[in-house]
Amino acid sequence: MEFLKVSSKSSPSSVAGAIAGMIKDGVPVEIQSVGAGAVNQAVKAIAIARGFLSPIGIEIVCIPAFADIDIDGETRTAIRFVVEPRFMRSRNAADIETHMQLDAQQMQSAYFE
Amino acid sequence: MEFLKVSSKSSPSSVAGAIAGMIKDGVPVEIQSVGAGAVNQAVKAIAIARGFLSPIGIEIVCIPAFADIDIDGETRTAIRFVVEPRFMRSRNAADIETHMQLDAQQMQSAYFE
Repeated sequence: MEFLKVSSKSSPSSVAGAIAGMIKDGVPVEIQSVGAGAVNQAVKAIAIARGFLSPIGIEIVCIPAFADIDIDGETRTAIRFVVEPRFMRSRNAADIETHMQLDAQQMQSAYFE
Repeated sequence: MEFLKVSSKSSPSSVAGAIAGMIKDGVPVEIQSVGAGAVNQAVKAIAIARGFLSPIGIEIVCIPAFADIDIDGETRTAIRFVVEPRFMRSRNAADIETHMQLDAQQMQSAYFE
């Protein structure tokens, strides 16, 4: 599988656009990031992508996992995020609504740490 | 709602234990972290918690969102993660299996960045 490789210098909104496009096209999304700065950007991208997809009725969830990868002959531990649509939600619908509103606020203020 | 507040100095395995306990008890889990180091520890905790819960047939997913919070009178942007069980999975079962194996390897080698 191809990974979206996210670094500490990646733009969360650009990565979010890629995630949203792939989810809309039914393409499996897996993100790989190495180091705290990269993981942070990946998480922000997923939160922003939720805001892109919620207006068209798609709710995404993510599943983080560790992966040993080789970078220039050295073994490093990456975090991989599987991002998937989840259309049905049996409980906490009010919570999700709150989160979506928070996302929208964030996108409007275009605040990225 | 109470949040599990995770900092850059939090132990991912301790937080993972708390997550797993709450999920097993049916308590809603929401994690709050501010800053890249804290977000990274939270993500690692969720990945480790998956390894704790998978042997008892519980698969968890997470939903990240932004939240404006007040710290000492200053507004900061936090990342909040809702962590929830998902028992059914219609596709990519093989992928999940792989991830669970990766988690288990990670726990054995007790590697935490």
